[in-house]
Amino acid sequence: MTHPRYTALAQTLPASVPFVGPEAQERSRGAPFDARLGANENGFGPAPKVLEAIKAHAHEAWMYGEPESHDLRSALAVHHGIGIENIVIGEGIDGLLNYIVRLIIGDGDAVVTSDGAYPTFNYHVAGFGGALHKIPYKGDYEDPEALLAKAHEVGAKLVYLSNPDNPMGTTLAPSLIENMADNLPEGCLLVLDEAYIEFAEPDAVPNLPIEHIGVIRMRTFSKGYGLAGMRVGYAMGAAALIRSFEKIRNHFGMNRLAQIAALAALGDQAGLQDIQNKVAASKVQITEIAEANGLTCVPSSTNFVTIDCGKDGDFARRVLGDLIAQGVFVRMPFVAPQDRCIRVSCGPDAEIARFAEALPKALVQASKG
Amino acid sequence: MTHPRYTALAQTLPASVPFVGPEAQERSRGAPFDARLGANENGFGPAPKVLEAIKAHAHEAWMYGEPESHDLRSALAVHHGIGIENIVIGEGIDGLLNYIVRLIIGDGDAVVTSDGAYPTFNYHVAGFGGALHKIPYKGDYEDPEALLAKAHEVGAKLVYLSNPDNPMGTTLAPSLIENMADNLPEGCLLVLDEAYIEFAEPDAVPNLPIEHIGVIRMRTFSKGYGLAGMRVGYAMGAAALIRSFEKIRNHFGMNRLAQIAALAALGDQAGLQDIQNKVAASKVQITEIAEANGLTCVPSSTNFVTIDCGKDGDFARRVLGDLIAQGVFVRMPFVAPQDRCIRVSCGPDAEIARFAEALPKALVQASKG
Repeated sequence: MTHPRYTALAQTLPASVPFVGPEAQERSRGAPFDARLGANENGFGPAPKVLEAIKAHAHEAWMYGEPESHDLRSALAVHHGIGIENIVIGEGIDGLLNYIVRLIIGDGDAVVTSDGAYPTFNYHVAGFGGALHKIPYKGDYEDPEALLAKAHEVGAKLVYLSNPDNPMGTTLAPSLIENMADNLPEGCLLVLDEAYIEFAEPDAVPNLPIEHIGVIRMRTFSKGYGLAGMRVGYAMGAAALIRSFEKIRNHFGMNRLAQIAALAALGDQAGLQDIQNKVAASKVQITEIAEANGLTCVPSSTNFVTIDCGKDGDFARRVLGDLIAQGVFVRMPFVAPQDRCIRVSCGPDAEIARFAEALPKALVQASKG
Repeated sequence: MTHPRYTALAQTLPASVPFVGPEAQERSRGAPFDARLGANENGFGPAPKVLEAIKAHAHEAWMYGEPESHDLRSALAVHHGIGIENIVIGEGIDGLLNYIVRLIIGDGDAVVTSDGAYPTFNYHVAGFGGALHKIPYKGDYEDPEALLAKAHEVGAKLVYLSNPDNPMGTTLAPSLIENMADNLPEGCLLVLDEAYIEFAEPDAVPNLPIEHIGVIRMRTFSKGYGLAGMRVGYAMGAAALIRSFEKIRNHFGMNRLAQIAALAALGDQAGLQDIQNKVAASKVQITEIAEANGLTCVPSSTNFVTIDCGKDGDFARRVLGDLIAQGVFVRMPFVAPQDRCIRVSCGPDAEIARFAEALPKALVQASKG
């Protein structure tokens, strides 16, 4: 008998972290990073009005967050032209992925995702005993036809797709995703992770009726709105599906200042536009730096640029390692052949300049093997 | 087949909320409360230095929280004289209760708690399929001997005890809890919820070695430190047990400003003392108000006073309903015979004065039946 008596599943799980945080890397290297460009955080955000709202309401931190997130959901309902009953707020998309997996996945249940897609989704699937089936990317894109075919083959209960994609930054034609949602196996749910959607062209967003029973859409204030540290995500979907979250979610889990910050951010669409403009300019900068070093970039609909280092994964890992040694925090795809790339988040000029300085040195160093 | 294909357990769960929030009550009554004294929040907190820290670091909200909460855990380790490996940070005690239940409880597993104790713990147990066994209070106290006997009888994997107790506010002699931890069934874990411990006398705190395999202690910044809205709790226990949280916790679930606020709060023990003094004075005020109305109070080791309304649950529910109608948010125990009481949180003078005004009217109204 274990002590305490862990579940059979818990006994089999590894103590694993989907991502090592930059602060742990800083402690390990004994110095802070000069540029924090690895976690697709948004160094331009949040907008000034959002910061004002946080400061103005800091004294409310003694009160629990409102458990229904009523005001934020109401504002989101207006923003998206849907009902409040179609929205659930959660502790970031990570928290919402935990909930949706927990509602649907038990021992051995089949789940389909792309090989190299979001590790935290996989972490939750494993954490509830699901069986993951992984489909290779098709070039620099997730492959909806193959994901769909695998879902039918294995009788998947969930299929995960991020669009825009992380870690490659690409978007799929909306019709491909709409087709996927319409042709799922019976009872299968498409988890459409749209964390980066504020950086995509509006006409790249799939048109799916909110009551479509085949899809749940995940959104966040972490990326476009620059509030990763506040942990506010939301899921949009059919009212019956959204209501099921009430069975298991942590009703008092939302940080009150996070609710206030998100509401302020949503209300400041000019602030969002400003951030979007800065991100667009930063993507041009990163692309120019890469090209000046003879490298090519994957087209990006996100706030990061995936740079093809032109050789294999070992080479890219050496580039990454040297950038980190030089104080530039970046990350890279985990799986071949995407691991020939490194992934650089947009950020303020000073940090991009540090990357520009460090990259040629890292390439030289990596070429020495 | 359901659509989507929920787990068998999810299909049986009700869409339930452990507590209706005060804001929902305000929407329902069409007016804000004048006094927010129902959720055992701490209207005196957080300390000024903590507010300064939140404001000074608000601009960091674009960065994810540090996934290991290294700085906060290090400070807590020093504060408690234990190792960093003995501490895990979570999204409030609610979040940590979810994790510990998930690690240990599966379909039909036995869990023992007191009838009328924390509903959110019960919510998590039900949410993972556990079988709850409830033991009546013994007067105004939880009953450790009966909890222990039931744990042996049913082969419990978890026993829950809050000390100081919520909703009654009482503490047990430390020896009773130490005895409980030492005499659990094999493999059983005592979940000792010490959310209110900063309000108890230091010699009322059980002395349990940190590596005691029978107990995990839950603490929070919500009560003593006045940061309920920030959602920072921590669990302390044997290193192997604490490490098991790494298998399932939401590594990037912590709000960055919450980590900063908690660290500032812990570092300002004079600020805590000031809050403790205000709470102590407020308890005297509430007690005097109750006694002036011919009511008696349960001795409190918390930041609330449980007032015995002197009749049955129906009477106390009428008192509560009238207080709420008068704009004074309070709550009450759910279960007889404790439901003869109402539970009033400490708070600033102006809010306590509103309670003082409202109580006699509520008692008159309730007496009319």
